[in-house]
Amino acid sequence: MAVFHLSSTKYIMPQNHHLLDNIAIVLVNPKYPENIGSAARAAWNMGITRIIVVANEYPNHERMIKLATHNAAHLIDAMEFHENLGDALQPFSRIIGTTARKGKHRGPGNSPRDIMKIILPLLPKNQIAFLFGAEDRGLTNEDLKYCHFRSAIPTSGFSSLNLAQAVAIHCYEIFHAVIHEQKEISPKPRLATSYEVENMFKYVESSLNQIDFLREKSHDYYMLNIRQFFGRMELQSKETKLIQSICRQLQSPQHNDKK
Amino acid sequence: MAVFHLSSTKYIMPQNHHLLDNIAIVLVNPKYPENIGSAARAAWNMGITRIIVVANEYPNHERMIKLATHNAAHLIDAMEFHENLGDALQPFSRIIGTTARKGKHRGPGNSPRDIMKIILPLLPKNQIAFLFGAEDRGLTNEDLKYCHFRSAIPTSGFSSLNLAQAVAIHCYEIFHAVIHEQKEISPKPRLATSYEVENMFKYVESSLNQIDFLREKSHDYYMLNIRQFFGRMELQSKETKLIQSICRQLQSPQHNDKK
Repeated sequence: MAVFHLSSTKYIMPQNHHLLDNIAIVLVNPKYPENIGSAARAAWNMGITRIIVVANEYPNHERMIKLATHNAAHLIDAMEFHENLGDALQPFSRIIGTTARKGKHRGPGNSPRDIMKIILPLLPKNQIAFLFGAEDRGLTNEDLKYCHFRSAIPTSGFSSLNLAQAVAIHCYEIFHAVIHEQKEISPKPRLATSYEVENMFKYVESSLNQIDFLREKSHDYYMLNIRQFFGRMELQSKETKLIQSICRQLQSPQHNDKK
Repeated sequence: MAVFHLSSTKYIMPQNHHLLDNIAIVLVNPKYPENIGSAARAAWNMGITRIIVVANEYPNHERMIKLATHNAAHLIDAMEFHENLGDALQPFSRIIGTTARKGKHRGPGNSPRDIMKIILPLLPKNQIAFLFGAEDRGLTNEDLKYCHFRSAIPTSGFSSLNLAQAVAIHCYEIFHAVIHEQKEISPKPRLATSYEVENMFKYVESSLNQIDFLREKSHDYYMLNIRQFFGRMELQSKETKLIQSICRQLQSPQHNDKK
């Protein structure tokens, strides 16, 4: 017996390959530098080059390189490092948190394939970050506050995936979507970045404090709801600035004097 | 910002989950026992339990278990071990060889997602093996003789995937297909197993030798073509026995006397 080819599909470099430059893999507090290397290799297999690590200390270079292999070593050399997740995410307009299927009050999440349908129209004009948490605990609720969507790889009973394998499956789905489905998509406009939106939230929060809307007890709960509400709106840059201006006006001494 | 769920898809145990029992992951001459453990964990994530290792020596148990983790240790304990690939493949009716995209005279192969379309109708009544070669060299041409199809994970320029990640991506595609697409498929009948087909080939080969069809020089070339021809036919068990009977008759002293 031997091999039959179903079709002559060739995976030559597609025209929209450059779209993969708008994707970043963000590893939040990874425990083992080997997993960063292994994740970088998987990303490079799929034409994704941007690796960001958020941690307290810069991970051991040698241990990362070992599993990145010679072929993906340049991704480790170019790796971005941040101590703070908010800083790391500033350039991104859409942020996807990857989670295990199970979790308290977290709901089932979307499958990576569902997520690609959302991401593809945004990809030409927006930078998109995929967040992966630590090997043992995953992303914290604090990390997930930045996320617009959650992606959960469908699994059978045992839902805890190896970190680098979870990265590999996501990168594989991204690459597959970009080379096979991108051409059928009408692109969406550039959305506000995390930096712009987080700035706006600071104004919104201080304004709501000033008018005593946010009482101490329910502060976090209301702010989370407000974040959700604005997150769903796919705000553009100029819209965050408009909201910011209204808040500034509300807080101006002039306005407060009139009270 | 926070999380929106596109749909209420829940990955509860589907009715056709038992079909995953008809899948085996076959690792041919893996160099690092850690990769066997890591592959077993990935298989167990996706409800696949049957791991077969073909090698000269039984791999180090402790090194396998370490990466299988406690959760998938039972797959390592139940792992089948063979020294010979032909023996390992005897129960299987369809065999898929996984290869990197590039390779001399090997063609592009089908993507894992294409392969699932072929596999799904066969899954209810046939045992299917997915073969993965060694980390550095992949499957040999000799290994590929047993394979009906080749699956090549689409990659960007750098096509060499980590072994356990290649297993993870295939298991993910298998699980996804079984839970989402199996119900729309009309099942195909049970095909002859590798054991039955290889037995038949022995008779075919000796018969063709006897009539001097297979000359020494082109023997392998013709046998490969004959294997391809029969492989494409999706032979059933009784059909291999019919061909075998014809060959036996041809080789009987009675028939030879009449010559």
